[in-house]
Amino acid sequence: MTLKIAQRAAIDPFIVMEVMRAANERVAEGGDIIHMEVGQPSTPAPVKVREAAARALAGDLIGYTDALGVPQLRRRIAQHYREFYDAAVAPERIAVTTGSSGGFLLAFLAAFDPGDRVALAAPGYPCYRHILSALGLDPVLIETQAETKFQPTLAQLDTAGRIDGLIIASPSNPVGAVVGQADLGGIAAWCGRKGVRLVSDEIYHGITFGTEAATAADLDGAIVINSFSKYFSMTGWRLGWMVLPDDLVKPVERLLQNFFISAPTLSQLAGIAAFDAHEELQANVARYGRNRELLLNELPGAGFGKLVTTDGAFYIYADVSGLTDDSLAFCRRMLAETGVAATPGIDFDPARGRHFMRFCFSGATGDMAEAARRLKAWRK
Amino acid sequence: MTLKIAQRAAIDPFIVMEVMRAANERVAEGGDIIHMEVGQPSTPAPVKVREAAARALAGDLIGYTDALGVPQLRRRIAQHYREFYDAAVAPERIAVTTGSSGGFLLAFLAAFDPGDRVALAAPGYPCYRHILSALGLDPVLIETQAETKFQPTLAQLDTAGRIDGLIIASPSNPVGAVVGQADLGGIAAWCGRKGVRLVSDEIYHGITFGTEAATAADLDGAIVINSFSKYFSMTGWRLGWMVLPDDLVKPVERLLQNFFISAPTLSQLAGIAAFDAHEELQANVARYGRNRELLLNELPGAGFGKLVTTDGAFYIYADVSGLTDDSLAFCRRMLAETGVAATPGIDFDPARGRHFMRFCFSGATGDMAEAARRLKAWRK
Repeated sequence: MTLKIAQRAAIDPFIVMEVMRAANERVAEGGDIIHMEVGQPSTPAPVKVREAAARALAGDLIGYTDALGVPQLRRRIAQHYREFYDAAVAPERIAVTTGSSGGFLLAFLAAFDPGDRVALAAPGYPCYRHILSALGLDPVLIETQAETKFQPTLAQLDTAGRIDGLIIASPSNPVGAVVGQADLGGIAAWCGRKGVRLVSDEIYHGITFGTEAATAADLDGAIVINSFSKYFSMTGWRLGWMVLPDDLVKPVERLLQNFFISAPTLSQLAGIAAFDAHEELQANVARYGRNRELLLNELPGAGFGKLVTTDGAFYIYADVSGLTDDSLAFCRRMLAETGVAATPGIDFDPARGRHFMRFCFSGATGDMAEAARRLKAWRK
Repeated sequence: MTLKIAQRAAIDPFIVMEVMRAANERVAEGGDIIHMEVGQPSTPAPVKVREAAARALAGDLIGYTDALGVPQLRRRIAQHYREFYDAAVAPERIAVTTGSSGGFLLAFLAAFDPGDRVALAAPGYPCYRHILSALGLDPVLIETQAETKFQPTLAQLDTAGRIDGLIIASPSNPVGAVVGQADLGGIAAWCGRKGVRLVSDEIYHGITFGTEAATAADLDGAIVINSFSKYFSMTGWRLGWMVLPDDLVKPVERLLQNFFISAPTLSQLAGIAAFDAHEELQANVARYGRNRELLLNELPGAGFGKLVTTDGAFYIYADVSGLTDDSLAFCRRMLAETGVAATPGIDFDPARGRHFMRFCFSGATGDMAEAARRLKAWRK
């Protein structure tokens, strides 16, 4: 008897992971690949983090931790809110998670029941809508526009029908648009009036260019998702955190106990030191800024003329409608013919993404320059 | 406007985690606690694993990996099936997961749709039923009996009504009952006839006393869940794996990409070395065996006379119906008055668990002896 496969498992792949695999296969075959597909820093974790990890490795049992995380780490994250945002966040509201991925699962399970409608921007991080779908939730895609920096407007939300939740990402992926304090406050107030749970994805905080992203950590009812993967340069460590409204602490703790037991212990113990590594991390951000300038200057010469200017994160979202009607095929061909790996826009925007692609500029500046040279030569 | 909390988040806590927190709080206050509540080895990861981790820490970027895991680790796990079970398992069928916790989420999402009924033994690992409930699945508890070693029988399954899935744990938690090759084959054949997806929890494989547990890795349609936490002594590393039937590889890969991105990289790189550490790991198992003997001999003298004899894992499930009608209160009082932390049976068996409790004997033999002394003095 043939066994069934669940309908809800019929979600789309996270295409960036498929591109990464294709790129890694080419590397294994001796290919000279420039990785601009995956959103991860090209640097390892800060020296202080690696030193703390080595100490923990030598001296700690590395057993399970409390489900909500090592108390010292929760306190250090709370202190980070005082230092960075001048926001008072009690350590009891912090939940340490297995990357922001774990945070999204927990947030969606804790705040929404099957059939609930959750609004989010298109283009946006594809896993939001895939996780929502697999959990029986209804993603309501708000088709955002370049003129409003690809962030949803209150006018759009007002006409989106009944919605139970709203995801706002700032700096956003793949666009890098930053929402300031006033706008975020306006969105939170709208959510409060409408009884909508706000999920604020802040995983690119710290990576901004000439502006600052606002946090929702002190806004009523909001769930904040953050991560050590981007600014803190710790992707493979699978460590993130949530700031929870008081009413969700207990539900999230129960879900954490059952779905995760606890986040990786070595990562938690090492992560405490990440908040003492701002000098090294700011140097990374300065490099991202140089890479951004370089690509904004050079890519037009390679035929990528319609670029969305980014205020944060480490992506350039390129309108390639003048080059192709099929960004997936275009990215495949570009990888095969130039060795430059980038991600097709269909990962981020099912409707319009075939006319877009995303370049990640978190690599070495020399690699970004080489990518620009190859693309110019290719497009000649 | 008050925001709602999801109905599906109203699952029970994993009580063992609550006991652990209470015990840790007593330790922080200077209490002299013997941990017999949490199912984790008292040893760190094997020396070879820690050495491999130190090397990776010094030399690897520790970035994201392929969603299904580092190829070298997937190959090494496949080799483990040849070496340990003489079973042919292709590396392509291995998915590396964030602990077995990650494996259960992925298995349940990939194989079952909301409303599906999944049978499992009571007593059993509480997170099974909590995760199932939170994902909209219907746990069908099979009340197992001491006479059949607390494993479900085919006669019980035949009368369980429509079921879509079956979880078999061997060695089981909290009982430690091992299912042999013939019985597991019979269960798999029954599942095949009925169109029921078998999920085989094998996370305590390697920890058996005078018997061997059978794997479902080469049985048609079965999903195997395993972990580095127990035999390999790597709880806090959050590393596990699944052996998937061919038809579930792609669905699980997509779910992995979206829900996890990838398992902790340092743990993956270090975990490869775990399969070369059997000498150290077998010494742990020998110690568990001594602890088991000690407690089976000593606990009756402390009033715990009705013990279920265990063939594997590192638990003793005690019938305390002669001592209390409320095992939760009993465990709390025992922790307060003796410093011995154990878990009430209600975590494992909602209906009958108030008359049972679970002792974990993975600690140092000296601690087990001290626990027995304290309990004897307490019960005098």
